[in-house]
Amino acid sequence: MSAADADITDPNAKGADTTPPPLRRGPWTTLAVRPAYANPWIEVAEHDVLDPSGRPGLYGIVSPRHLAIGVLPIFADATTVLVGQYRYALDEYSWEMPEGGGQKGVAPQESAARELAEETGFEAVGWAALQRIHLSNSISDEVAINFLAWDLRQLRGGPTPETTEADLVSARVPFVSVLERVLAGDITDSLTASMVLLVEVLRGRGGLPAPVALALR
Amino acid sequence: MSAADADITDPNAKGADTTPPPLRRGPWTTLAVRPAYANPWIEVAEHDVLDPSGRPGLYGIVSPRHLAIGVLPIFADATTVLVGQYRYALDEYSWEMPEGGGQKGVAPQESAARELAEETGFEAVGWAALQRIHLSNSISDEVAINFLAWDLRQLRGGPTPETTEADLVSARVPFVSVLERVLAGDITDSLTASMVLLVEVLRGRGGLPAPVALALR
Repeated sequence: MSAADADITDPNAKGADTTPPPLRRGPWTTLAVRPAYANPWIEVAEHDVLDPSGRPGLYGIVSPRHLAIGVLPIFADATTVLVGQYRYALDEYSWEMPEGGGQKGVAPQESAARELAEETGFEAVGWAALQRIHLSNSISDEVAINFLAWDLRQLRGGPTPETTEADLVSARVPFVSVLERVLAGDITDSLTASMVLLVEVLRGRGGLPAPVALALR
Repeated sequence: MSAADADITDPNAKGADTTPPPLRRGPWTTLAVRPAYANPWIEVAEHDVLDPSGRPGLYGIVSPRHLAIGVLPIFADATTVLVGQYRYALDEYSWEMPEGGGQKGVAPQESAARELAEETGFEAVGWAALQRIHLSNSISDEVAINFLAWDLRQLRGGPTPETTEADLVSARVPFVSVLERVLAGDITDSLTASMVLLVEVLRGRGGLPAPVALALR
């Protein structure tokens, strides 16, 4: 409810106590916010705003319920694990690093370890959160955190994918082959592309954790 | 409408003629699709599906109405242009390469040239579409296309931002400084991070167009 609405419904109400004043977001002003849509994975909120030029308008924000998490495991033999699955939203098959959604109250590394175990059957001793990116910042507040993982050990029991991932397969492939597939445009997942390119740049500059630098030397 | 609904309403109707059969998307089956939400920037569709294990479920897909477009201009003096603006959806200030939404019927390079002109006041003679990525492929079908632009000429009139971009500023900065800011995690926009890292990898491998390679040598 905007301040103006409160005045109309009851001019004598203690408006200052019950109606939040317009909020500032940098040069934007938020007049009102209402939930507009929700499903188990996303919420959409509609914000009545004044834009940076002062004009009234609408801003719709998609908020995923989970944090996007990616893990690039690097083995001592310079390989990594890609997972292949049919991406329903794209209607395309996609090869990617292990990825999934992290619950917002759970430490991102814990979610990353869970995804790595479920999708590849490996656990890692070495972990580094290398990248935090906003995936689509004009329409969404979605954040992705990408981890590098090393010192990998095979879990008894192997991969345990969710039922929606019953088609998921994993493949051990040289890091350099994954890089080539990113450069060829054959891997299109933004988290994977960004993370593989980051690791390659850090490799060239001596910016990787020592065991990963040794593996990829 | 699903096949089951058609049978209940009129068992003698020519169901086969009017009700689409279940569609396959790889190992998924689409039973029904309905529009669930729309605003001027996105649509959300809810799909009744059978997942790859055969279980019934719901899949919500966010479809942006525009193509995400990024442009990394590289000047002969090894600089680029960053644009700074307050990103309302994040409630954060963000420095990024010039970006915007391309209409789906318009050639992506045309949209990229428009964004470059509007946000920086430059036009480019040299263009290459370097990257096509899916930004958030578990919940959205959003595609981004990132262009490299070179042989840049200042337009009379300068930048002409939209009113929602009234706070937008641009700054000419060395490419290497932008790379450092990506590596420091200070630039979080996924399109910019991915594109800057790609250009740095291609620079090291001799994979850039000659005028850009010369500028960044």
